Amino acid sequence: MSDNMLRANGARVLADLYALRAIGAHNTGVHKPTFSEPHLRSLQWLAQKLPEAGLAAEIDGIGNVLGTSSKPGPKLLAGSHLESQNYAGWLDGPLGVIYALEAARVINPDPDTRGAVEVASWCDEEGHFGSFLGSRSYVGALTEAEIDAARDRTSGRPMREALHDAGLAGRPRVAAVPGRHIGYLEAHIEQGQTLEGGGLSIGVVTSIVGIWQYRIRFTGEQNHAGTTRMDVRKDAGLALARFCVGIDERFPSLCGPRTVWTTGRITLDPGAPSIIPGAAEMLFQIRDDDPSVIARLEDLLRTMADDVTAAGRCSVAVERLRTGAPAMMDGTIQQAIEAASLACAGGKSIRIPSGAGHDAQVLATIMPAGMLFVPSIGGISHHWTENTADADIVTGAEVFVDACKRLLAR
Amino acid sequence: MSDNMLRANGARVLADLYALRAIGAHNTGVHKPTFSEPHLRSLQWLAQKLPEAGLAAEIDGIGNVLGTSSKPGPKLLAGSHLESQNYAGWLDGPLGVIYALEAARVINPDPDTRGAVEVASWCDEEGHFGSFLGSRSYVGALTEAEIDAARDRTSGRPMREALHDAGLAGRPRVAAVPGRHIGYLEAHIEQGQTLEGGGLSIGVVTSIVGIWQYRIRFTGEQNHAGTTRMDVRKDAGLALARFCVGIDERFPSLCGPRTVWTTGRITLDPGAPSIIPGAAEMLFQIRDDDPSVIARLEDLLRTMADDVTAAGRCSVAVERLRTGAPAMMDGTIQQAIEAASLACAGGKSIRIPSGAGHDAQVLATIMPAGMLFVPSIGGISHHWTENTADADIVTGAEVFVDACKRLLAR
Repeated sequence: MSDNMLRANGARVLADLYALRAIGAHNTGVHKPTFSEPHLRSLQWLAQKLPEAGLAAEIDGIGNVLGTSSKPGPKLLAGSHLESQNYAGWLDGPLGVIYALEAARVINPDPDTRGAVEVASWCDEEGHFGSFLGSRSYVGALTEAEIDAARDRTSGRPMREALHDAGLAGRPRVAAVPGRHIGYLEAHIEQGQTLEGGGLSIGVVTSIVGIWQYRIRFTGEQNHAGTTRMDVRKDAGLALARFCVGIDERFPSLCGPRTVWTTGRITLDPGAPSIIPGAAEMLFQIRDDDPSVIARLEDLLRTMADDVTAAGRCSVAVERLRTGAPAMMDGTIQQAIEAASLACAGGKSIRIPSGAGHDAQVLATIMPAGMLFVPSIGGISHHWTENTADADIVTGAEVFVDACKRLLAR
Repeated sequence: MSDNMLRANGARVLADLYALRAIGAHNTGVHKPTFSEPHLRSLQWLAQKLPEAGLAAEIDGIGNVLGTSSKPGPKLLAGSHLESQNYAGWLDGPLGVIYALEAARVINPDPDTRGAVEVASWCDEEGHFGSFLGSRSYVGALTEAEIDAARDRTSGRPMREALHDAGLAGRPRVAAVPGRHIGYLEAHIEQGQTLEGGGLSIGVVTSIVGIWQYRIRFTGEQNHAGTTRMDVRKDAGLALARFCVGIDERFPSLCGPRTVWTTGRITLDPGAPSIIPGAAEMLFQIRDDDPSVIARLEDLLRTMADDVTAAGRCSVAVERLRTGAPAMMDGTIQQAIEAASLACAGGKSIRIPSGAGHDAQVLATIMPAGMLFVPSIGGISHHWTENTADADIVTGAEVFVDACKRLLAR
């Protein structure tokens, strides 16, 4: 570590995370959907903390909290998000915001350190109203029309109404100033088991995988479940089940080392116990950071669908709903995190891709971006039992602050 | 045929069926859910027709229409139902009611024929509010508490409210008079392809299969679809798909010649594209008229579930929701239909079980009961394209009326 006086205060980091958990607590986790009362209270909490780090605080017209420094020299942007999935974990988001706050508190007041850490809390990373609305607003990739159309996926409440009720309607949306920042750094829980399984403290994120999403529709013939003989049925639901099993048998021979695929939803039509489903649909997702891997898997998917259709009993249509754009993390930032990990965490780090999406992939479209992971106990996330050992939280904060110093010192 | 003057008037039968199709028409079918305006209008239509057959008409407190004869001698009860599945066929129900009306019109006025045909239209055979509510009321197997609890499965409207709005609240429910009838006869479209495939006119129903219904639940571990490696997943949806395919592979070696099984509904929990399902559920049904066949299939189902659970990734629980009670049709009635078919349809008949449930299975609990099927074009039913050739409708009516005469003459 370059200066023992300039290190993270682990007790302060934990105290801040506990304070945020107390707002909207649910068992040992939190329930803070975007623009819920506990979410708005968390934004206010952060805005009141930012001056401690010498930052001017602002909550903008999309619900981003931004802490801006007037200190001369290079600026590093750091942050994450404060809303949660429904009834979910306490660290998914707040960890990265508090690490950023801590880095700013340690570094910004120090007259011997050039430049400053600026802090951001991006609104709605969890996608209650859309896809990365806060960070996309900041990088200039969000239109007013998209905000007009956005609704809470659970309640249907329009985003405009939520912004109005939060007192944010009419406020300007803060946009990135080109060239202001040397880069963006975000910390997050891993949400997987690689670090825990390897006895490691730090994940140095190499890329954020792209998400390709598909709707796969099966069309058979709806008929009476009592009077239609088995040999003449055209059961769309059974065709779907066979297809799922077929994917699981054939994907492993063509996928990459970290490809993942998931059937998250299945619907049979009409979905009645006494009717043979005439139609069926599955939502299917593939994630990888290598588009060429996806290309050959999608080819396989379409070949499998054509084979089923050619067999004549049911027809299958594969529709791509979402085309993934993997984001590569900046090499210099990866080196800085690795050096910080050597200095503060005994070098117990590993380079890994992120299987989950994060605001860093949006920031990466306009500036060098990097991410740092800390271990997740049992790999659990998006559930209120999500957790990380206190010692790992503190180690992560120390590595994060040290990496920020190294980046500003370059 | 015993008397050429006493035969069905085919043109009159078709005209009546067309008249009923015009009430609540939907394309070439009908949309007449129980207690909808077109359903109630159909009940009124029937009540006004019954006096033509010398029958006193009554719509009772559950929505059954009953036509009662004061003619001395034996009484044969005949009928079916007038409501439809949603947006479904014109003959499923009305065919049996109009055949019964026609038999009563032909037979009852004839002074040389002993006894009379009495007509019934059973309410809600299609199960919008419950299971065979009308016929179960008639045989004394429906409590007031069950009516209190019944709600329309689509709209949620309470049955009590529907009865009140229909002007039927407070009316007595008519119950069977023990010993009054020598039996019950019901005609219906086959809803399968056995008659059409064999070039046959009449199905002589031997039994109505029982329906065994199961809820099969899979429990795995909900997790993030991006960060959870394939090899550590406990995907309940995938376990369900494998189970469906396994059933289809293993049932054929143990089932009977006409056993059918259907997975009508699949639900993944939470059903989101980016979450590995932690739980999944399927509604599964088996139909057969032989409980010993079902017993060995259910054993297989439970063995398969135990095998999955023992493998350790997901656990499977099989819960029986409904235990089928196959109903055997009366042998004397089967003989009468066969003799009528020889006389009026060139003997083009076959003995077959009914894969669908019908009110006849409820009537069979208190009197000898029988059923006659006419061909379904393409085997289609529960869809507005359901149809039967006019010539087959007329032939069926002639066989039906002749069978009624034979039964009354015994």
